[in-house]
Amino acid sequence: MKDHPTEMNGAESVLRSLHDGGVEVCFANPGTSEMQFVDALDRTRLMRCVLGLFEGVVTGAADGYARMAGKPAVTLLHLAPGFANSAANLHNAKKARSPVLNLVGDHALRHRKYDAPLTADVEATVAPFSNWVRTGSDAGSFARDAMEGLAAAKGRPAQVATLIAPADIGWDAGGQMAAVVEPEGPKPLDDDALTAAVRALESGEPTVIIAGNSVLEDEAALKRLRGIAEKTGATMLAPTSNRRTERGQGREKIAKIPYPIDKALETLKPYRRAILIEAMPPVAFFAYPGRPSLLLPEACETVTLAGLDGDGPEAIAALADRVGAQPSEPQPREMPGRPGGGTLTLPAMAAALAHVLPENAIVVDEAVSSGAELNGAGDLARPNSWLSLTGGSIGIGVPLATGAAIAAPDRPVVTLQADGSAMYSIQGLWTQAREQSNVTTIILANRAYEILKGELRNVGAQPGEDALSMLNLDRPELDFVSLAKGMGVPGQRVETVEDFVRALESAVKEPGPFLIEAMI
Amino acid sequence: MKDHPTEMNGAESVLRSLHDGGVEVCFANPGTSEMQFVDALDRTRLMRCVLGLFEGVVTGAADGYARMAGKPAVTLLHLAPGFANSAANLHNAKKARSPVLNLVGDHALRHRKYDAPLTADVEATVAPFSNWVRTGSDAGSFARDAMEGLAAAKGRPAQVATLIAPADIGWDAGGQMAAVVEPEGPKPLDDDALTAAVRALESGEPTVIIAGNSVLEDEAALKRLRGIAEKTGATMLAPTSNRRTERGQGREKIAKIPYPIDKALETLKPYRRAILIEAMPPVAFFAYPGRPSLLLPEACETVTLAGLDGDGPEAIAALADRVGAQPSEPQPREMPGRPGGGTLTLPAMAAALAHVLPENAIVVDEAVSSGAELNGAGDLARPNSWLSLTGGSIGIGVPLATGAAIAAPDRPVVTLQADGSAMYSIQGLWTQAREQSNVTTIILANRAYEILKGELRNVGAQPGEDALSMLNLDRPELDFVSLAKGMGVPGQRVETVEDFVRALESAVKEPGPFLIEAMI
Repeated sequence: MKDHPTEMNGAESVLRSLHDGGVEVCFANPGTSEMQFVDALDRTRLMRCVLGLFEGVVTGAADGYARMAGKPAVTLLHLAPGFANSAANLHNAKKARSPVLNLVGDHALRHRKYDAPLTADVEATVAPFSNWVRTGSDAGSFARDAMEGLAAAKGRPAQVATLIAPADIGWDAGGQMAAVVEPEGPKPLDDDALTAAVRALESGEPTVIIAGNSVLEDEAALKRLRGIAEKTGATMLAPTSNRRTERGQGREKIAKIPYPIDKALETLKPYRRAILIEAMPPVAFFAYPGRPSLLLPEACETVTLAGLDGDGPEAIAALADRVGAQPSEPQPREMPGRPGGGTLTLPAMAAALAHVLPENAIVVDEAVSSGAELNGAGDLARPNSWLSLTGGSIGIGVPLATGAAIAAPDRPVVTLQADGSAMYSIQGLWTQAREQSNVTTIILANRAYEILKGELRNVGAQPGEDALSMLNLDRPELDFVSLAKGMGVPGQRVETVEDFVRALESAVKEPGPFLIEAMI
Repeated sequence: MKDHPTEMNGAESVLRSLHDGGVEVCFANPGTSEMQFVDALDRTRLMRCVLGLFEGVVTGAADGYARMAGKPAVTLLHLAPGFANSAANLHNAKKARSPVLNLVGDHALRHRKYDAPLTADVEATVAPFSNWVRTGSDAGSFARDAMEGLAAAKGRPAQVATLIAPADIGWDAGGQMAAVVEPEGPKPLDDDALTAAVRALESGEPTVIIAGNSVLEDEAALKRLRGIAEKTGATMLAPTSNRRTERGQGREKIAKIPYPIDKALETLKPYRRAILIEAMPPVAFFAYPGRPSLLLPEACETVTLAGLDGDGPEAIAALADRVGAQPSEPQPREMPGRPGGGTLTLPAMAAALAHVLPENAIVVDEAVSSGAELNGAGDLARPNSWLSLTGGSIGIGVPLATGAAIAAPDRPVVTLQADGSAMYSIQGLWTQAREQSNVTTIILANRAYEILKGELRNVGAQPGEDALSMLNLDRPELDFVSLAKGMGVPGQRVETVEDFVRALESAVKEPGPFLIEAMI
């Protein structure tokens, strides 16, 4: 353990211990009950403090940071309402199996029994959005609570851990440093599952391997997986929503299970055997009248080779070994040239992205209804990390990009941001300006909750005037360049391919954030 | 019951029944699981649909609507994450005892067991922010559930009621109309409590009467209360946070218990008897080292004449009768003239507000650290309704004003909006533009979470550079005029008293929303 003062309060012992455990960044939107943490952060100067103007920015940024840094940041949130504001993006982090450690301030223990204006049941509020919950009970054990939370966050799979921090536990003297707690490792590979997987591959039946999470972050694992697919004739697929995929030239191109229910059913219809590697049996995003919830055909036999708590790359190596497959390089793909002129359409934008995205770009994908058409750019562009919306809770793009840029300051970040979704957490632009992060936000301005128009038809309705008024965002038109300006981010509206390419080329090169409002 | 179709789905039966029960407005931010409600709203055209770009706007607007209309609107929210986004302002509505009925869409019942991306525990999520919760179980009983929720919302005190609406219950045929359910009335006045209150007033000991909720909305009750105070020598006070107070020339001026802990203790220190009327024993907003949680002196004897479930105006009438007090008119107060020139300070702004606020203005007060200095304007101005932040959860101002304007389209709304707080729900400006509501948002631009600087000192800390960086909002500066422009709301930045007065005079007269960024 490093050199620490012998006398400190509970808050300081938590921050010093977490820092010893490798936590370097605190994303914060503090209130009165967190003032002792603000004070301790100030005095110790051990962590980089990143302020968000809204709690959804804080947790979305913590998720983006974790996806790129491979370790958790700590968040600082204020009581039940502050946590609730943060919850939608914690939901996404939880579904991403992304490590996040929350410190949620609460009233002092003696104050909790009164119905003060901000009193609410904090434990009940945090539970649905946390895998691990604890409430600090005294200054002396507070750091130990935090270190157990940190270990829970870093488990396999990674988790959302929430430590509730009553104000007095933070300001009381008697804080004690706590040692690092080792997180649980992955579940060992199960030999029966391995044998069953081999049997599926050798069955002669149409077989799909669905691989997610850390497999998609691991170039070598994907090459091994391609080798298995080529050797056995199996198909490789990724889940619809993935926290991070290493993509681009020279890397494996793995198709995702489509979002629209009918396309998803069509894609999976041929298979009689499915092997899951760090993936769950695929489920429809929503239920629809007359369609099943489970996407694999009823007759399909499923083998879970590695669950979400397993080690997918290790499982793939073992499987390759058993079927005698060598790693295989992906087919070369031609990178598109500089796109020609004309009106900005989604296909033109996809080609432009593939052409312009610089090496090592981080792409944050909250394109929603524009996503299917833009997705291919990730495979054609230079090598990149592609981060997606994982829990279906919109409003992740701007925050996720904000945090990814803090984790990887040398890599340009490009956000593909649906306009409707952008408005849930647009406040994150301010943090990007404050941190002078190289984030380019591309607003996909179709002026509608476009995806809901399809969903309305999926439940059998024909939208009339009132329905459309609840799905269209054109009255008044949102002006994202002005919104960005209001938060210190320069921007430009573009309507042609040339202007889009020029704006994007310049934005990814220049330091600091930029917003491109792409009229599509 | 009105004429309704004999065959309808669950969603339509809910909307038709609620409309029969007097619900006229639906504030909505729908997603896929609510499409059958969007469809039913569209086909029936029974309710005014008001779209919010973020769920906190939806619930804050429902609260503002309820405070002015005296009855609930219905909200339409999307699954656990959508509800969570709405929860901070529901917390405020719950503390305000404001009636709100939420319809929260969930996955179809058969889909709930799968770990779909948007699956989360909706019941657990809504519970901490709702007084009444139910989950619809089939189309035939769905409308009855809704009507019981509506009755719960309209109870005494009013409540937040949440009906969880699985998608299939909405789209299934077999919807049945349900009759209106009478809400519970107020708890009858307790004769022993009345006798105890009379004894306190006649004790000769210093006595304070703390009256809240519906008393503050009732001019006649306040005049009776003044008569009691004058007759007995008791002091009248209101709680720190109140959902609505009828204020201005010709109306009673009732002081509030101050927010800062030391001032609150000082204010209540003299009293040996306290009578509570639709009010709880006053509690410190937060606990602080070395200060008590309960604000009344330990030696003070407290009588609850009417609880939050009672009828305060009736209790006051009975009390006046028992002590032989007549209603009393308030002291005349001089309305300030047109303020002179110079730099815009808070006192100058208070004088300007008192001079300019038109008769029947609705003032939404989320002034936070500027609130103490601006509050007096409400008593000096023409008669007005003053709506405050009740649950301490910031980000209510813009949404509350949005909903108040829907309830009272003929009354100008003026929002006193702290800048830091504004950024939690700034998206509400778009709804104001969409609905062309006469709302003037005054941003109190001090470029800081100013109130937290005081709170940091209250826990014994001296803010250094890192602490200030988490409390100051000046890097980069927020430009609220650009933000407003981005959402279709015209605006102006003002730095002098003259410009402020001119901008406010014109904004309250003109239809449609306007934003004044007041540099203070």
